[in-house]
Amino acid sequence: MTHVIILAGGSGTRFWPLSRRNQPKQFLRVCSEKPMIEDTLLRLDTLVPKNNIHIAAGLVHTNKIRQSASNMGIPLRNCFFEPSGKNTFSPIVLLSQKIYTFDPEAVIVVLPSDHFIKDSAGFRKIIKQAVSVAKNGYIVTLGISPKGPETGYGYIKIKSGNNKGFYFIDKFTEKPVLSVAKRFVKDRRYYWNAGMFIFKAKVMLDEAKKYMPKESALIQKMSSAPGLIKIWKELPSISIDYAIMEKSSKMALIPADFGWSDIGSWQALEEVLKKDAQGNIVRGNSTILDCNNSLVFADKRLVAAVGLKDVVIVDTPDALLVCAKDKSQDVKKLVELFSKKNKYLKYI
Amino acid sequence: MTHVIILAGGSGTRFWPLSRRNQPKQFLRVCSEKPMIEDTLLRLDTLVPKNNIHIAAGLVHTNKIRQSASNMGIPLRNCFFEPSGKNTFSPIVLLSQKIYTFDPEAVIVVLPSDHFIKDSAGFRKIIKQAVSVAKNGYIVTLGISPKGPETGYGYIKIKSGNNKGFYFIDKFTEKPVLSVAKRFVKDRRYYWNAGMFIFKAKVMLDEAKKYMPKESALIQKMSSAPGLIKIWKELPSISIDYAIMEKSSKMALIPADFGWSDIGSWQALEEVLKKDAQGNIVRGNSTILDCNNSLVFADKRLVAAVGLKDVVIVDTPDALLVCAKDKSQDVKKLVELFSKKNKYLKYI
Repeated sequence: MTHVIILAGGSGTRFWPLSRRNQPKQFLRVCSEKPMIEDTLLRLDTLVPKNNIHIAAGLVHTNKIRQSASNMGIPLRNCFFEPSGKNTFSPIVLLSQKIYTFDPEAVIVVLPSDHFIKDSAGFRKIIKQAVSVAKNGYIVTLGISPKGPETGYGYIKIKSGNNKGFYFIDKFTEKPVLSVAKRFVKDRRYYWNAGMFIFKAKVMLDEAKKYMPKESALIQKMSSAPGLIKIWKELPSISIDYAIMEKSSKMALIPADFGWSDIGSWQALEEVLKKDAQGNIVRGNSTILDCNNSLVFADKRLVAAVGLKDVVIVDTPDALLVCAKDKSQDVKKLVELFSKKNKYLKYI
Repeated sequence: MTHVIILAGGSGTRFWPLSRRNQPKQFLRVCSEKPMIEDTLLRLDTLVPKNNIHIAAGLVHTNKIRQSASNMGIPLRNCFFEPSGKNTFSPIVLLSQKIYTFDPEAVIVVLPSDHFIKDSAGFRKIIKQAVSVAKNGYIVTLGISPKGPETGYGYIKIKSGNNKGFYFIDKFTEKPVLSVAKRFVKDRRYYWNAGMFIFKAKVMLDEAKKYMPKESALIQKMSSAPGLIKIWKELPSISIDYAIMEKSSKMALIPADFGWSDIGSWQALEEVLKKDAQGNIVRGNSTILDCNNSLVFADKRLVAAVGLKDVVIVDTPDALLVCAKDKSQDVKKLVELFSKKNKYLKYI
């Protein structure tokens, strides 16, 4: 059967002041009226039974995850709470092990919890295609055609020659410098790595055993033993890309074009949300006068914006952000700054 | 003796959201740690005894005026609360009448309560000079050399020929269009009307009797009768400029250069407040990153500004303004807009 692992362990800071330590992006209601993780779960509708959906998240977010799982009909026993953040390798292999134990033929779809996908039907169609490729023993990644020379993404280069709808992979490049990213975008053989992987549980466990034998053994031990926290502490914080994908010879890529965005900043919401005739996106209790291409996320307090161009305003009960739209990547810097000063810790 | 009448009946909206119906500009702490009216009163120190300072204000602001009068040692009996706004003619003539009754030789200095003056000593020196000119029977206005073609001010044209430090006045022009204002600025015979007048009580009462006989009689009646509100209602809402100054042949002007600003908008604060090396003015709980020439008036909530240029941010507990600096005149429009919508009335 097909199973899904939702990775909800992120702790992003780029949506400050809406996102906070105890409320990272996956819990924000920015793309719809629902938390992003619930949009992600909703998108799986008709694809897999709810019993086959598993969530890996941080222990600190237990309550929020339980709430969303309950809202969406996901069994609570399917939620795994990581005692500490360990990147993607350990949770993926641990849950693959768990799923394999009761369904040795399982095909697993790994999905981030906090990405935007415009075309849900197109998404499900591609996942089905990926599942059938994975059944032949491949670890399938979905590749997004680059929309620009983004330096924050991983790029995947394919080998030429389409094999019934998928490509073999030549190499992975994580976060290239701008000049390199520009070259990648021109070269049609590069795709963005969207962090969506599809594989047979058995294949993943075998590859883990091959490339990460020690860690793989620890995880196998942990999946049957109760002393979870002790073993978890010994596991490395490493991404599945770095641990397995970049080494495995079983990698395949399926190009995906379903209106994907990882919404990495306030500015990225432009691609996702509806604008008024002047290009503004406005929410909450707000009044705007002569503004263009601006984004106003008001809450209960009245926000009045006058004569602005390309400005982001995000109001929350205890903190307010006003940011030039093209500087919205710097919100990360701001939060780093706050994290170093005692008096600002309460705001992050 | 010299007396001062402080006009504190203003109800400006241009400092929204800091200024509100019950808190107009004269009560704001924008230029210093004190309300502007207290800065104005402080400036009179050594010029006149506190017993000789009179305040005309709106009845709705009774408590705030009493507080400031008490803070500054002004007798409460010197505060006159207008039952309704009647512009400047009626309160000035009424208080002149009152002062004249117990001091027939009184010279009166009329001053707005909400203007900024950089050079307090220079201000007092000019007032003393004006008082001595007024003693000869003139109604003296202080004229500010235009700093630019402002269309929101009144302009006063002098007659050529300096008469021992003052000029006779040729004509008044209220709020000229831009092309005319530009011409006025080039022509050295025009001054801004700063709303500061110095005259003998007797001279003002005589001129009022001459040019506004009916109203003058009503005011005289009212100054001795108790039925204040009834008579006040009959008085016209008219400025002293229009009622008297533009007609009187006793007008004189003394050029004044003591760093005056009426601070007519958030932008105008630039001329008054200290800036950091990037030209920013920052108050309250705020953090700025890569901002230039911006103004942040934070309150208790944290305000974070990133990458802004020429933006004004004013945060209050229930409403926030984010405004392009060169559009800060439009705050007035915003408040007008609010005044027409029921759900926004609570914010003005």
